[in-house]
Amino acid sequence: MGELTSLRQLGELRIIRIMERSLGTNRNTVVGFGDDVSAVKLADGKVAILKTDMLVGSTDIPPGMTMRQVARKAVVANVSDLAAKGVRPLAGLVALGLPATLKRKDVQEIAAGLSSAAIQYQFPLVGGDTNESNDLTISIALFAIARKEQLILRSGARIGDVVAVSGEFGSASAGLKALLQHGTRPAKLPRPMYQAVYNPRAELDLGLRLGSSGALTASIDSSDGLAWSLHELSRASGVGIRIDHVPVSKAAEQFAARHRYGARDLALYGGEEYCLVVTVKPEKFRLAQKAARGKLKAIGVVTRKSAGVRLRLAGGDVKVAMKGWEHFRR
Amino acid sequence: MGELTSLRQLGELRIIRIMERSLGTNRNTVVGFGDDVSAVKLADGKVAILKTDMLVGSTDIPPGMTMRQVARKAVVANVSDLAAKGVRPLAGLVALGLPATLKRKDVQEIAAGLSSAAIQYQFPLVGGDTNESNDLTISIALFAIARKEQLILRSGARIGDVVAVSGEFGSASAGLKALLQHGTRPAKLPRPMYQAVYNPRAELDLGLRLGSSGALTASIDSSDGLAWSLHELSRASGVGIRIDHVPVSKAAEQFAARHRYGARDLALYGGEEYCLVVTVKPEKFRLAQKAARGKLKAIGVVTRKSAGVRLRLAGGDVKVAMKGWEHFRR
Repeated sequence: MGELTSLRQLGELRIIRIMERSLGTNRNTVVGFGDDVSAVKLADGKVAILKTDMLVGSTDIPPGMTMRQVARKAVVANVSDLAAKGVRPLAGLVALGLPATLKRKDVQEIAAGLSSAAIQYQFPLVGGDTNESNDLTISIALFAIARKEQLILRSGARIGDVVAVSGEFGSASAGLKALLQHGTRPAKLPRPMYQAVYNPRAELDLGLRLGSSGALTASIDSSDGLAWSLHELSRASGVGIRIDHVPVSKAAEQFAARHRYGARDLALYGGEEYCLVVTVKPEKFRLAQKAARGKLKAIGVVTRKSAGVRLRLAGGDVKVAMKGWEHFRR
Repeated sequence: MGELTSLRQLGELRIIRIMERSLGTNRNTVVGFGDDVSAVKLADGKVAILKTDMLVGSTDIPPGMTMRQVARKAVVANVSDLAAKGVRPLAGLVALGLPATLKRKDVQEIAAGLSSAAIQYQFPLVGGDTNESNDLTISIALFAIARKEQLILRSGARIGDVVAVSGEFGSASAGLKALLQHGTRPAKLPRPMYQAVYNPRAELDLGLRLGSSGALTASIDSSDGLAWSLHELSRASGVGIRIDHVPVSKAAEQFAARHRYGARDLALYGGEEYCLVVTVKPEKFRLAQKAARGKLKAIGVVTRKSAGVRLRLAGGDVKVAMKGWEHFRR
């Protein structure tokens, strides 16, 4: 774990390990900790899909984000994980921790943001809990039903599979760097960077189409960054991954050129982007592309575990580090 | 709403109304906001039961509570709501917001507390999310499956039903007053008060037995206080309630006598106690008592809505105020 960028991340992983060891599963647990969602067996060959993701004000909110955008993003982060599994949310819950300093208008904006996301992804938020907290907290839990074989886990990648992604990377990390390190005002961000930071979208329709194509062997969303997602697929599937091409967004390339960042690093080690990162049976790659209606791009291939996660460059392969975006410490 | 004890409570109610108006339901929503749990329709005459309740460090933790007790209580609060509906939890999720100041041991204690509660109530915690936060936050979401007619809602009470409770009240509020207002050290609390504050239990077995007895018409847990629960049954069922007897715990009576509190007020306007408050068809009250194995005590009767929630005293009836325990502001 020497490649982790901060003690904080190390801490988070350790905490997750402690939780995994203590909590865990019973005989009805189909998927426990360690994938995008959890799943428990129901009576009739189906599984209940459960997902929770918490947004915390002090670490998860970029400067200038409205309460409506914050609340919307809290839902998007959860929907994205179901999208990566090929599963449509049936209903959701929202638990709120609200600082006493919030105004009525803030609460209305939070409600509007939650509502607009639920409408966009076509499920109801049917219940919740409201609390006072020193740190704005929006904890969403989603619920769905699926057939077990319908779930695309992180663990199904096989040697020779195509590694593919649903979009280009780097706009969010470029936008965040502009905001946090270059003092750029939100209104001055180039449009793709603004949208990536403030109005992210979950690829739900795409995930459902890809899932039902039968072409995928593994899938994850890229919310912790492309590099992190690749490492997760590698870990969960027990395989290596060789990337031949890092798809960098034009906005990220321009930002990188102007401010002398490595564009490829912005794309690899970003985060807060909700693309899908999948592995595809090679003989079904065209089928997957058709299901994705042009939104799927091959970026590499699944290799032996011992090869690790590597990037092929003109001068030879380099290791892809297991690191991602650090949250917005204030 | 002039009877509310604080602007803060008023705020919380208003916030809940804003959320209810904005979020809400679709055609598959069987129970939305406004009951102990939510429920959505599944394919086969069954419903999925969803519940979330968030524990926040700065407002929900009595002084002297260990991290293990805190985490256990976060689960108990959620299980209690399912207990009141007569439904057994199938699986749970836990989203954590952890202050950076927490030690590894604290995290292990939280994991142990979550785990011990999940084992006690026989369901797995199958997934979660870990975050850094300025305020310790434990957000639990529970999931269950039930037949729709199995759910005991808040809304089924009918005029003439017996109002009954599963225990005595006041130990928790007496304990909290001792800790917060009289500087009593936790170890010096009388045992029943200590247990009520630090090791509360959810009445899951009792709730399941009462639920399947077919004798209940409505049910709620008493986590916001007995008075609040009675008002909620009254509101949701569109009825009045007349209480003939407030069951005060011996510990609360002794504490009240020593410190010149009204024992009845401690019992009515407490909270953080996880008893069941139910209404029972009068002809099935003995059946319910049998199902409860002696733990069910009649305290009143369901009346016309216009009569409100009242307490019969020797000198005549008095109104029961719609107020509950105020959280532990620091």
